[in-house]
Amino acid sequence: MESVAIVGTGLIGASFGLALRAAGFEGPILGVSSERALAEALAAGAIDRGVPLAEAVGQADLVFLSQTIGRILDTLRHLDPLLRPGALVTDAGSTKCEIVEVARQNISRGQFLGGHPMAGKETRGAAGAEAGLFRGRTWALTPDDRSEMETPAAREFRRWLERIGARIVTVDCEMHDRMVALYSHLPQLASTALASTVSELGADLPGLLAGPGLADMTRLALSSYDLWRDIVATNSELIERALAAYIQKLEHVRENLRTRQLQLEFARGAELAGKARGSGLR
Amino acid sequence: MESVAIVGTGLIGASFGLALRAAGFEGPILGVSSERALAEALAAGAIDRGVPLAEAVGQADLVFLSQTIGRILDTLRHLDPLLRPGALVTDAGSTKCEIVEVARQNISRGQFLGGHPMAGKETRGAAGAEAGLFRGRTWALTPDDRSEMETPAAREFRRWLERIGARIVTVDCEMHDRMVALYSHLPQLASTALASTVSELGADLPGLLAGPGLADMTRLALSSYDLWRDIVATNSELIERALAAYIQKLEHVRENLRTRQLQLEFARGAELAGKARGSGLR
Repeated sequence: MESVAIVGTGLIGASFGLALRAAGFEGPILGVSSERALAEALAAGAIDRGVPLAEAVGQADLVFLSQTIGRILDTLRHLDPLLRPGALVTDAGSTKCEIVEVARQNISRGQFLGGHPMAGKETRGAAGAEAGLFRGRTWALTPDDRSEMETPAAREFRRWLERIGARIVTVDCEMHDRMVALYSHLPQLASTALASTVSELGADLPGLLAGPGLADMTRLALSSYDLWRDIVATNSELIERALAAYIQKLEHVRENLRTRQLQLEFARGAELAGKARGSGLR
Repeated sequence: MESVAIVGTGLIGASFGLALRAAGFEGPILGVSSERALAEALAAGAIDRGVPLAEAVGQADLVFLSQTIGRILDTLRHLDPLLRPGALVTDAGSTKCEIVEVARQNISRGQFLGGHPMAGKETRGAAGAEAGLFRGRTWALTPDDRSEMETPAAREFRRWLERIGARIVTVDCEMHDRMVALYSHLPQLASTALASTVSELGADLPGLLAGPGLADMTRLALSSYDLWRDIVATNSELIERALAAYIQKLEHVRENLRTRQLQLEFARGAELAGKARGSGLR
C-alpha cells in the first residue's frame, strides 16, 4: 500500500489519516473534501494535500470513503472509471447492505470491501481528529464472501487496521445491519424520543428535580440529524421492527406497573445491561 | 437539635449520619434497622448505637425515615405514640404525595415535613455510605404549606441540610411527583424496557457490535426492582401518563423515519438534552 485517498475528511477520515501516519505509513495521503474540511484536515496533519477526486483516486491503492452514507452511495456510482486497477475501495458507513449493493453494481476495476469503524465522539470535523480514535474499538468488515478478506489488497488493509489498534469483526452486511439496528439505531431513537417527550410534557414545569439518570438517557439525543438521516433511511425496515418491539415492551410495562411482570422485566433488563458493560456487547 | 433517629440505615440513612457528623453534629445518632444493616452502619461510623424504634424515637428531636417507601408508610402509621412532642419527622422517599397523606392522617404529636434527597449511587447499603453524598445535590422538601418551613424544628433541620451541602428545593408534593415521573421514573422504565427489548431481539445475535451508546442507555436498567416496586406503585397514575406520551412519540418517530418530522424530533430532543446537561434540569 503506497498511496491512500481519503474521501471525506471529517472526524473519521482525518482520524484515519492520523492513525495511519502514527502507525508508520509513509506514502502520500490525499484528501478529497470541501475546501473548509480540507483546510481543517491539513491543519490537523491528517492529509498531505487536498486534491480533486479523480486525481486522488487515480493514484491510490486504498480509497477510503468516509463521507455520510448518502455521499458514499453517490461516490460509488461515479468512482469506477477513476480507479487504479486492483485498488481496494472501502468505506466507513454506519449501515452496510445498501452500500454493498451499490458497490456490487458499480465497482469492477477495483475490489470493494465494506467497513464500519465503530468509533466516534460528540464533536465533528477534522479539528477533533485523533490518531488513537480506533484503538481498541470494533471495526466491522462486511465481505459478501470470506475469500474477499484474503486478496493481497484486503490482507494489507487488515494489517494496517491492526496496526492502528482496531479490533476487526467480520460479519455479513445483513447481520451487521440487524445488529446496529438493535444496538445503535434503536438506542438513538429511544433517546431522541425520550428527550422530545420530556421536553413537551415538562414545558410548564420549573425543571429543577432531575438527576443524572435523565442526562445519561438523553446524551445520544445530542447527536446530529445530518448524520442520522441517512442511517435511518438506509436501515429503515430493521429500525421499524426494533421500534415496534420496543413500543410493545413499553405497553407491557405500562400495563404491568403493579404486577410481578415488572419484576421480570427489571431482571431481564439488568442482565442485558450488565453484559453491555462487559466485553460481550462492546 | 440534640438527638437524631435514623430509621433505615442503608445507603441514604447511613450517609445522612456520616454527613451530620462531618458537619459538626455532636449529639447521639441512633439507628433503627435490621441487625445486619445496623452492623454495617456501626462499622461505617454512621450511627452511635442500634436500638429499637420506640427507644430511638422516644429521645429524638429529628426522626429521619430512610427506608423503602412501603416501610416508610408502615412506620408512619405506628410512629405517633412513640414521638417526643414537637419532634420533626422527615423522610427520604422518592415519591411524596402518598407519604404526605399518610403522615397527615397519622402524625399529630410532632411535625411531619416530607423530603427527597436526590442522591444515590449504584451500590446499596451502609458499606457504600459517604459523608459527601448530598453535597451539591438537590434535596426536595414538600410542605403542604410554606409556614411548615418556618417552625423552629424545620428551620434547624434546614440549617443542617445546608451544612451538609444539599441544595434545598421547596415544592408541593403534587409538583414533586409530576416532576419525578417525568425526569426520573420515565427514564428508568425507558431504560429497563430498552434493555429487555434488546435482550429478546438480540438473543440469537453474536453480540459484538455495540458501542458506548447502548451502555449509556441501559445503565439505569441495572437498578434494583426492590427499590422501584414501591416508587412505581405510589406514582403509577403519573407514570402511566408519561409512558403513554413516550409510546405515542415513538409511534410518531416510527411513522416518520423518512420525513422531515424526524428532523424536528432530533432538534427538540437535542435542545432538552442540552438543558439536562446544564444547570436547568439538574
